[in-house]
Parts: sequence; structure tokens; C-alpha cells
Amino acid sequence: MTNWFDGSLPEPSALTGFAQNRLVRDAENRDGHSLESAIAHPKASFHLFAGGKALVRKDEAPTATFNAREALQFEPNMAGAVLLGHDETGPRLAVPVALDGDPLEPYRLYDLRSVLYSSAVQDEEAGAIAQAASMLHWHATNRFCGKCAASTAATNGGYRRDCAACGSQTFPRTDPVVIMLGIHGDKCLLGRSPHFPPGWYSTLAGFVEPGETIEDAVRRETFEESGIRLGKVRYHASQPWPFPHSLMIGCFGEALSETIHFDGTELEDCRWFDRHELDLMFEDRHPEGFKCPPGKAIAHALIRAWAKQP
Amino acid sequence: MTNWFDGSLPEPSALTGFAQNRLVRDAENRDGHSLESAIAHPKASFHLFAGGKALVRKDEAPTATFNAREALQFEPNMAGAVLLGHDETGPRLAVPVALDGDPLEPYRLYDLRSVLYSSAVQDEEAGAIAQAASMLHWHATNRFCGKCAASTAATNGGYRRDCAACGSQTFPRTDPVVIMLGIHGDKCLLGRSPHFPPGWYSTLAGFVEPGETIEDAVRRETFEESGIRLGKVRYHASQPWPFPHSLMIGCFGEALSETIHFDGTELEDCRWFDRHELDLMFEDRHPEGFKCPPGKAIAHALIRAWAKQP
Repeated sequence: MTNWFDGSLPEPSALTGFAQNRLVRDAENRDGHSLESAIAHPKASFHLFAGGKALVRKDEAPTATFNAREALQFEPNMAGAVLLGHDETGPRLAVPVALDGDPLEPYRLYDLRSVLYSSAVQDEEAGAIAQAASMLHWHATNRFCGKCAASTAATNGGYRRDCAACGSQTFPRTDPVVIMLGIHGDKCLLGRSPHFPPGWYSTLAGFVEPGETIEDAVRRETFEESGIRLGKVRYHASQPWPFPHSLMIGCFGEALSETIHFDGTELEDCRWFDRHELDLMFEDRHPEGFKCPPGKAIAHALIRAWAKQP
Repeated sequence: MTNWFDGSLPEPSALTGFAQNRLVRDAENRDGHSLESAIAHPKASFHLFAGGKALVRKDEAPTATFNAREALQFEPNMAGAVLLGHDETGPRLAVPVALDGDPLEPYRLYDLRSVLYSSAVQDEEAGAIAQAASMLHWHATNRFCGKCAASTAATNGGYRRDCAACGSQTFPRTDPVVIMLGIHGDKCLLGRSPHFPPGWYSTLAGFVEPGETIEDAVRRETFEESGIRLGKVRYHASQPWPFPHSLMIGCFGEALSETIHFDGTELEDCRWFDRHELDLMFEDRHPEGFKCPPGKAIAHALIRAWAKQP
């Protein structure tokens, strides 16, 4: 019998950024009273958001998790709160606050990329912040019913919005995105989007469309962006990606062709890289200044897993 | 060097139902004129839908794909059309029609489960129908802007809805769902939902939530529904699931515990099954009348892949 569960722990997904969310969601038991009870809980803790950014207290022990007393000075809008889950002491909530400009020291607002890359907060907090930011964005963009235009209201701890006018229910949205490293012999395929920082090359990526398998989406997106045909596809890892509420599904794809075509709009360059070049990029000493996305991005995890393959 | 792309083709995902969609989407090149051009194309073909059901011409060569002339007799609402992609002859579109009651013979309406299980249409058509039904449902439930309640209008072949009032853009929705077979030694974990046909047992499943990896969702849903703790998780296959627009992500999970707890609401039973019982269920001769979901469901693919493991 083959080993049905080969691979080692921690699994590749657990090594990506935003993946260390340890809150217990207890999704089956959310109901119309969950939010109210959580807010009233004496040990409730809060993540606070203004304009899509997370509030961080930047002192000797930086944190993005506040107790009720500390949260209250920012006038949280509890009507817009979402119950994220429970930690060992009590419920954790995400709450929007209204801030006029920057907060006073030692408080600062961090955008989500800074939360991911700066190590300003603990990895577990970053995971909860990703969940929170995705949920708050979903509420902000679903205030009205898509079927009848009436106002909708949140229930079930923030995990459902109901339309009293037509009775329709809407649930939080998570957009699956495939992100993949095409491989041809001893080379892998990376592209450069016009939006990237200078020198960056990364894996190709795109939204899974309705009616598509993960593997078909990997092949379609790779062909559309680079002209490269992929055959076999292998899943590697996934990553929560709160921009605004995606699930990155990381795969390897076996390239069946080698000649790259790209149209210059989606990508401004697309090339094959060998392991030696990748090593230079990891160490930031590539002669042409090429770089990989940083370590917590699933793109980095895919590139490194292949480059460092024994 | 290990074989980076082990596993054989066809890949497990290609063997699930709704997965044989061979239309070329050419997603990068959709624009504001795509739909108009496709409808005007002399070789355009159409899938027609009424009340979420697909129209099928049930004669000696059953089909759900109609040319413009045949489609026109059903008074298609071309303003609500979606461009699915291109086959070898021309563009394929999904169009709602207004039908008062059942159509006349030889036409019939098939709900999507019948499309999947009845073999009334070709597998490639079933895949295109899944894409079409998901897209049409998304349009029907996103007629108004969730941010400002103004009307939205479709563009880009039906792959975007724009709000002229506030400028927001909305894209088709695909909901990732984990569906998993928990395994403990020589037994696997199946549950019975109150909604299942008599005797059915199937894999557990649930929506991936914002801010969650695939693996964490597999472990959370399994624990919430059955009380079983999973450790390692292995991806197996995915399946488009147009109820209304999900992506099933099929995994195996290594059970760390054996004692099942379920609360009777989500599941009315949950049990361990060994391979001998599964064989009896595949052959429909289990002494207690237990059955598995049919072959085209990813649940069946997961159960069979483990049961028939060499």
C-alpha cells in the first residue's frame, strides 16, 4: 500500500502568509444572537479597521488585538461588527472605526500588504486580519440586495445578509484564483506585470471562472497570458488573499511547449528562469536586478519549492 | 530527482461530471463588443434556459446546443445573453428564454442534476451548461449594485456588471467548497444529510470561508460536522458545481481520532465504512440498503479512488 498521506507537516499551505489564523470559527453554531453575545462577552477582543487598513498599537509589544476598553476610544461601529471566532479567552471581532486622518502614536494604520510583509503583527494576528478585512469588504459591497435593490441586514455573526423585501440571503464571497508555476525541463515560467515593483518576476495567476476545474483554469490562464500549453497540473498549497477576498490555489503545471507569446497588456515580460537564476534572485544578487516576491507570498512558496527540490 | 508530475492522465478532475467543458473562453480578450459580435456570428450556437433548467431536444440525436434559427422560436432574451466561449465552428452563448409551462415535444427542460446524471446530453454539453447556468444565476442575483442600489448593466460578454451610478464593477462569483473523505486506517468517514435520497451516504462538505486555507477548511468542516479531528490533508480533484456557482475542491484527510459526534441537524447519521462495505454500496447490494452518490459526483470519485486503491 502506498502512503496515502505522503508529505510532511507543516503542510505547504501553513507556510504561506495570512494562513496562521487559529481562531475557532464554530461556523455551524452561528445564529441571530451570536454577534450580540460576543460583543457583550467580558473577554471579547477586537480588530479595528479604517478605510480597509488595520489599526496596530506600535509599542514594545506591537498588537492589532484590542480589548473592549482600548477599542472604545476609537468609537467602533458595533452595528457593522463581524464575529471572527474564538481564541482561548473569548470571542474575537472585526469592527470598523471612523478615523479622521492618521491615529495618534503609538497607534498606526497598516494596509494589508504591510500586515503581510512587515512583521508588525504576529502571524496569527495577520491571519485573523485577513479574515476580518475580507468580511468587512464584503459587507461594504453588499449593503443592497442584488435581486431587488432593497437594503440588506447582517445576521449570523456577520456571515449572512438578508433582504427583508424579497427574502433572499447572501453569503460571504471568496474568489478562487489559480496561481501557477509552469515548468519545462529545468526551467520555470515567470512573468512581469506592469503593476509589479521594479525587477519583480512572479508566477502567473487568474480567477477560476464559473464552470471550470482548477486544472483547466491553470491551463487556460497560462495559455492566455504566455502562449504556453500546460499538460499535467499538480496542486501544491493555498493561501487566503484579502485583496479583497480571494483564495489563492497554488499549482505546478508541466509545460508542453517552450515558445512564449504575450501581448504586453497583462504582462510586460515573460521568460524562462533556471534554478541558478532563481538562487541569485532569492539572494537579491541577480545581475539584471531581477527579484522574486517575498517569502510569505504563495508565489514565493511555489518558486522555492521547485527551485530547492532535492 | 523525483517525478515532479506523477499521476496519470486523464487527471482525476477530468473524470468528474460537468468537467468536460471544451469551449475556448479567451477570457483576456473579452470587451464591450464581444457579446454583440458573438450574437451576430453566422455560426453562433446557443444553450437556452428557463427557470434555471436547460432546454434539450430529445430526439434520435439529443442535444442542448441550438443554432440561431432553432433558438429564435423560443424568443430568447438576447439582452440577457452570456458568451461562454468558442467551439470549432463559432461562439457559444447562454440565453434565457420565457417559457409558459413545459415546451412541446421533442423539447424538454432538464434540471441540472438531470443534466449531470441522466446522460441526456453529451459530457461536453453538460460542462458548458454548468458554466451557463452559473453565469445566468449570477446575473439574475446581481441586477442592482450592492454598494448603492442603482441598476447594474452587463458588459465584457457577460463577465462583468457595471454600476453607472457609483462606478463599481462586479465579477462572476464562484464559491469554493471543500468536500473530503476522512480516512482512519482501513475505514473512511461518510455522513447522511436529511436531504439525501434514501440510503445515501456521502463525503462531508462545506464552504471555504474568507481567510481560510483549503486544508484548514477541510479540517474545520470535518470537525464541526462529525467531531473527527483531521491532520494531513491531500488534494485529489475539483469539480464545477452549478448549484448555483460552486467549485468543489475534493480532498482526503487523515483522521487523528475515531469517535464520531454529530448533532443531528446538519447530519442525521455519520459512520465509518470499510472497503468491503463500499464495494457492496458500489454494486447496490449493501444489506442495509446503503448507497454512494453516483459516478459523476466528485464524492463518488473520492470514495472510489480510496476504495480501489491498489
